[in-house]
Amino acid sequence: MSKPQRILTEWWLGWAPILKILAVLWVILALFMVAPWVILVIEGDPDATAFAMSIGIILGASALTLLSTWRIAVELKPWQMFLITTTSWGTMSCFASLPLILGAPQLSVTDAVFESVSAITTTGSTILTGIENLSDGLKLWRGIMQWLGGIGIIVMGIAILPFLKVGGMRLFQTESSDWSDKVMPRTGGIAKATLSVYTGFTALAAVAYLLGGMAPLDALVHAMTSLATGGFANSDASFGAYADRPWLLWMGSFFMLCGGLPFVLYIRVLRGSRGALWRDAQVRGFLLFLAIVILVLSLWRMWNGTDAFSALTHVAFNVISVVTTTGYASDDYTLWGPFAITAFFYLTFMGGCSGSTSGGLKIFRFQIATQMLRNQLHFLIHASGVFRARYNGQPLSDDISRGVLAFSFFYFLTIAAIALILSIMGLDTITAVTGSATAVANVGPGLGDIIGPSGNFASLPAAAKWLLCAGMLLGRLEILTVLVLFTPMFWRR
Amino acid sequence: MSKPQRILTEWWLGWAPILKILAVLWVILALFMVAPWVILVIEGDPDATAFAMSIGIILGASALTLLSTWRIAVELKPWQMFLITTTSWGTMSCFASLPLILGAPQLSVTDAVFESVSAITTTGSTILTGIENLSDGLKLWRGIMQWLGGIGIIVMGIAILPFLKVGGMRLFQTESSDWSDKVMPRTGGIAKATLSVYTGFTALAAVAYLLGGMAPLDALVHAMTSLATGGFANSDASFGAYADRPWLLWMGSFFMLCGGLPFVLYIRVLRGSRGALWRDAQVRGFLLFLAIVILVLSLWRMWNGTDAFSALTHVAFNVISVVTTTGYASDDYTLWGPFAITAFFYLTFMGGCSGSTSGGLKIFRFQIATQMLRNQLHFLIHASGVFRARYNGQPLSDDISRGVLAFSFFYFLTIAAIALILSIMGLDTITAVTGSATAVANVGPGLGDIIGPSGNFASLPAAAKWLLCAGMLLGRLEILTVLVLFTPMFWRR
Repeated sequence: MSKPQRILTEWWLGWAPILKILAVLWVILALFMVAPWVILVIEGDPDATAFAMSIGIILGASALTLLSTWRIAVELKPWQMFLITTTSWGTMSCFASLPLILGAPQLSVTDAVFESVSAITTTGSTILTGIENLSDGLKLWRGIMQWLGGIGIIVMGIAILPFLKVGGMRLFQTESSDWSDKVMPRTGGIAKATLSVYTGFTALAAVAYLLGGMAPLDALVHAMTSLATGGFANSDASFGAYADRPWLLWMGSFFMLCGGLPFVLYIRVLRGSRGALWRDAQVRGFLLFLAIVILVLSLWRMWNGTDAFSALTHVAFNVISVVTTTGYASDDYTLWGPFAITAFFYLTFMGGCSGSTSGGLKIFRFQIATQMLRNQLHFLIHASGVFRARYNGQPLSDDISRGVLAFSFFYFLTIAAIALILSIMGLDTITAVTGSATAVANVGPGLGDIIGPSGNFASLPAAAKWLLCAGMLLGRLEILTVLVLFTPMFWRR
Repeated sequence: MSKPQRILTEWWLGWAPILKILAVLWVILALFMVAPWVILVIEGDPDATAFAMSIGIILGASALTLLSTWRIAVELKPWQMFLITTTSWGTMSCFASLPLILGAPQLSVTDAVFESVSAITTTGSTILTGIENLSDGLKLWRGIMQWLGGIGIIVMGIAILPFLKVGGMRLFQTESSDWSDKVMPRTGGIAKATLSVYTGFTALAAVAYLLGGMAPLDALVHAMTSLATGGFANSDASFGAYADRPWLLWMGSFFMLCGGLPFVLYIRVLRGSRGALWRDAQVRGFLLFLAIVILVLSLWRMWNGTDAFSALTHVAFNVISVVTTTGYASDDYTLWGPFAITAFFYLTFMGGCSGSTSGGLKIFRFQIATQMLRNQLHFLIHASGVFRARYNGQPLSDDISRGVLAFSFFYFLTIAAIALILSIMGLDTITAVTGSATAVANVGPGLGDIIGPSGNFASLPAAAKWLLCAGMLLGRLEILTVLVLFTPMFWRR
């Protein structure tokens, strides 16, 4: 072989397995489009064509890719894993947006991609208005996109990110010590078990919502977006459409919370380790944190004249919604006064547990940071002593704690940088900062008149929407996974 | 001796050296009150009595303390150093506020302490209005308080904090390797050399301001508050009173910048090491950062229709003012549009160089954090390699880099906590967050209508003022130095 030929071959051998896996994922996406298509066909809605065309395009692209990579063996090196994570979320979002472009709302490419990135990253920010008037097929598709994004991130968080050592997530490598050694079979095993639990919870949520009086389609979509901690709803009022039905609000709170806990622990509980959830430091920290915040804010609401039950119901719902990064709103909490606004601003950054569908900085990073702060004070007093942080009963290695702190820095830096660019585009400081934070943390609503809990992202300039898309993907993929692709080091390997 | 007697004796032997040093510092404070007193006596101003009384009270307290601790030898252990740093800044602020309570403005204790804490921490937030109508003595006293706070923090940053290992400041322990080994002589040596440089710069600044047309007293006060990066001015318009005099603005920029660089390097330069300033990583990073920010914001202003010279002058002045944590304003930059507001919001957190009169997070922490981020990306790609951060050509030890990251976390946590409490007190989110940030970073102005660059802290509730006092002191003393006193560990030693 000549030299250029050899380089080309090597390049192809590197990329082919990546493309092959992407194509398999695209096929799954297309298969999920069949459900809304069937509904639209049954209802005789002309938008069925949009879904049919989308399925055709995606299957066509997948088929071409699969044919050309058929004989390539899939054995992945870390650099290929990095590329797969970013490209899979990117391409899935693009393909998922097709029905929004081809069908009834006939969105611009910008708006459609924003909506589907927001869906697949389970962020839940929307540019659509009059959501209650969308076709049933499209409502279902919005739910499915978030649901797929949810299962995708759980599997990635358990099976892939810990091995890429991203942001201290190697901490959770031991979590999966009961799966086999190779990445692919492990991913398969985890995916199956997780999928069962995730589907089970979704079914339960749908039944609970049905019992609470939701129409079947609404119950299904809300169940999917609750478990995915995504937050898409079937009306512009978000979950506020059910603001006067405490049962639905409490069920919503419960299932968002279920979506925000580590799914691997549910599997352990089902396999007989009854205390697995409660013994976990992350779960305990998370529940304790939520309990305190909900208690304090409820007392604050009661002190301001709201009756106890209503205060507790709405505070619990909205706090759990923001902290699990779901982003439903049952009420415009920005009208609850300055303390509530500042509190919700902070809560936007938090996030749920690692290995769940939640985004954000995640509770374990706060716990490890707190440990390091305590150690730091210790260090000042007993100058010579060596103090090691522990987590979940295990000693914390230096590279994990360093990873956690560095990640937290990157996280806030990313939010700050995106906010700065947004404000160059003319967005006011509140919209820019909270818009950036809500995107990177995959929450959904920001603060202020434009993108607050009763607002909408439609009026933002196109450039801002694309930047927020980047922010949502960065946040969803734990930032470093994406940033690493932009270092010369990565390509020099 | 009986047991209670022995405990009492031990307690006294621990505290007596602390009190002795405090008393010496109080005497210095009282001596500096003589200057404004003399001016008021010459001018026949009845407020001379206020200063006379203050001097009497302080000298009385000092005399009592010195008499009872006269025979105690001063050999300090680290825990005593921690106590001295916090108590000296606290008690100096209280004593310094006496003339404001006893004299003409007859402030409440809250307002007087706020003003003097703001002065001594070189923050520069004020609760006074009609500053141009204050007596000459009081104007001078406000300048002197900041000037003393400035020299105090330089000496502390060079001679004390590095030995307490606070927030990665051990990095600068080598800086003073040419001083003798014991803390006290070293402090003395540094204090003398620094005092000369600091006084020299102040004299130069006063001459420059005189040449620019300021009245002698204004020139002196502004010179003192420029070098201290404090930011008190002699009128409500702050430095805006000279907004149409480019010479004064550029001289102001220059001397604030001088105040924001490490003073130990000036001493090196004077001792013959000509390149000492430019070879320092912190100085280079700081100047580069300022150059980029000023360039970008100037271009932004020009693009929005301001002429080049005026844009550059005002951008340079206000950026340097905020980044060096001086807090003068030549213009209400919150009217420069959303990009400028967001930018100034971020700049509030930055701070200047360690070993200067600047507050804030400080440039070296950003530089070390950046290094760690780069290492983190490296680590993701080359999983097995060991990468060490370097700073100023020296390898960074693990405990320094961990100290830097932990400190940064504490810093933002402190700001967030204070902002949350401020918003419970009813302050709107912008005022609460920027008020907290500007206090902890010792900058001066915040954002928003109330405490923005053209606003004033007078209207805040008393509780908020006390909380901000705590924030200013925490920020000035690198947070951990104070927090350590609130751990049970510290008192159990």
